[in-house]
Amino acid sequence: MTVQINKPYVIGLDLGGTNSVFGIVDARGEIKATTAIKTQGFDNAKDYVDAAVSALQPIIEQVGGIETIKAMGIGAPNANYYNGTIETAPNIAWAHDIVVPLAQMFSDALGIPVAITNDANAAAVGEMTYGVARGMKNFIVITLGTGVGSGIVVNGQIVYGCDGFAGELGHVTMVRGEEGRLCGCGRTGCLETYCSATGVARTARELLAKTNQPSLLRDLNPDDITSLDVSIAAGKGDELAKNIYEFTGKMLGEACADFATFCSPEAFVFFGGMVKAGDLIMNPIKEAYDRHVMPVFRGKAQFLISSLDGASAAVLGASALGWEI
Amino acid sequence: MTVQINKPYVIGLDLGGTNSVFGIVDARGEIKATTAIKTQGFDNAKDYVDAAVSALQPIIEQVGGIETIKAMGIGAPNANYYNGTIETAPNIAWAHDIVVPLAQMFSDALGIPVAITNDANAAAVGEMTYGVARGMKNFIVITLGTGVGSGIVVNGQIVYGCDGFAGELGHVTMVRGEEGRLCGCGRTGCLETYCSATGVARTARELLAKTNQPSLLRDLNPDDITSLDVSIAAGKGDELAKNIYEFTGKMLGEACADFATFCSPEAFVFFGGMVKAGDLIMNPIKEAYDRHVMPVFRGKAQFLISSLDGASAAVLGASALGWEI
Repeated sequence: MTVQINKPYVIGLDLGGTNSVFGIVDARGEIKATTAIKTQGFDNAKDYVDAAVSALQPIIEQVGGIETIKAMGIGAPNANYYNGTIETAPNIAWAHDIVVPLAQMFSDALGIPVAITNDANAAAVGEMTYGVARGMKNFIVITLGTGVGSGIVVNGQIVYGCDGFAGELGHVTMVRGEEGRLCGCGRTGCLETYCSATGVARTARELLAKTNQPSLLRDLNPDDITSLDVSIAAGKGDELAKNIYEFTGKMLGEACADFATFCSPEAFVFFGGMVKAGDLIMNPIKEAYDRHVMPVFRGKAQFLISSLDGASAAVLGASALGWEI
Repeated sequence: MTVQINKPYVIGLDLGGTNSVFGIVDARGEIKATTAIKTQGFDNAKDYVDAAVSALQPIIEQVGGIETIKAMGIGAPNANYYNGTIETAPNIAWAHDIVVPLAQMFSDALGIPVAITNDANAAAVGEMTYGVARGMKNFIVITLGTGVGSGIVVNGQIVYGCDGFAGELGHVTMVRGEEGRLCGCGRTGCLETYCSATGVARTARELLAKTNQPSLLRDLNPDDITSLDVSIAAGKGDELAKNIYEFTGKMLGEACADFATFCSPEAFVFFGGMVKAGDLIMNPIKEAYDRHVMPVFRGKAQFLISSLDGASAAVLGASALGWEI
């Protein structure tokens, strides 16, 4: 990472299915200015980029003009780092069934270099630049949200693989054969089907149906239960809710033990809404990891929670990509 | 890789439990001279290195003296690349319960740089330098021998992890819970317990005991069956033996599908004695991979068999490390 003193800022764009949030960030990860637009409601990518640049102009002026900006980083679904594109993103109308060269479009409009990657890789770059993974060369960020994502850093570089899509650890197979849960990717038994927020809700429904264990969760309509409900119940000492975290953490810990055989990371960094459960989820992860990891790796990896602030974490992650260009 | 024309050779050492084989190799992977000593029978590492250097002297002279040698690479069990050491190698008397700084010892004795890594990583460097992975930046070598080893290349570099021991894909868990086979690493259900040569023999014994299917293998004492026996029987069209390869290949293919989520390699390169079974093993691997891999990765990875010559492959792999120093 080379920070040019005369260009002290980068722009980060967290491009979500609903909102697009922009931040201008300095080398220490301080957000100097922000703005946002809706992601949807545009007929095509050009209209989206035009609206984005219009929203950006005032905050760029605020920090001293485009001359002070080194580059821009974008975190977006279905992003291909190598090509600078969003490729057939199912949840974005203007990128639904086409390949959008979004990095080039922003670069042309702003006159600065632009890079793009998915949100989990952006989170990994963010942790390496501003967060708990500063100075680390080998670590894995695992994002626990609606899905399970991952950003893998080996020898100080994000692992993009031959096609730009590497780092999909949410889709390693944890339960083989018939009994594996059906995944959104079309396969069964993926880690994501158990350990995402939706996976946790699914586990809650299964445990409520399978057992007679009393639980605060029984007061809710099973179909409406969310991971937040499970978290709240567990916080109140609800045993069944705590069992759900045990189950979820155990599977994550076993998965991390497999990941260690790959790249022997110095840390696993957990990121996303579910991490708010703290020890409830982290303790079972660590216990299962210690029980399942190969002896040669035991005790070597730290288990950390992202230090980037929740609301701005995605923007910070995206912005960090700007320093790498 | 920078090949210095005035130092056209590297030394490779394949340090096995029984024999230590040396080769002097040029940049195209041609072995110019070889020699060998027994690995065992020395009281300490210094005596081993002294014997090795005595054996090396004549072949070094043969190629024009030490001035023509750029560096030396060693492939050895329990090797730590970062530290240049062999660490408590159970099968080598002079390294059994200590850490031996073997790279430094050879470097001091010969006056050239020396690097060391395990045999699977050496194989990966060898494939990248002289073999089927030339020009590739992201690939995985899987060695199918007594155990299952792996060498992973990401962004053109071997993945060593935080401690030098990364790339132990033979120890990902393929069968979870009680029914997983006990592994030499002390855990259960590891890929290696199913897909190594010893795993194949174990599968043979299990299938012979579980079924009444006729088989040439029934003529043998079950305890004496080796993967070679299975290969010979399968070559003669024996259905049970072919089923063993189906089972083994299916599990390898499923494992490779998981590995793709990590680093999306452009190729899986298979190496080692079991690969001689050819399509018998490669076809089930590819079929299971296509069935299990995430759609985004489907059709992207090649499945290749090592092109390095069997007898000298390990020496070539080790020597290739010399060009990387």
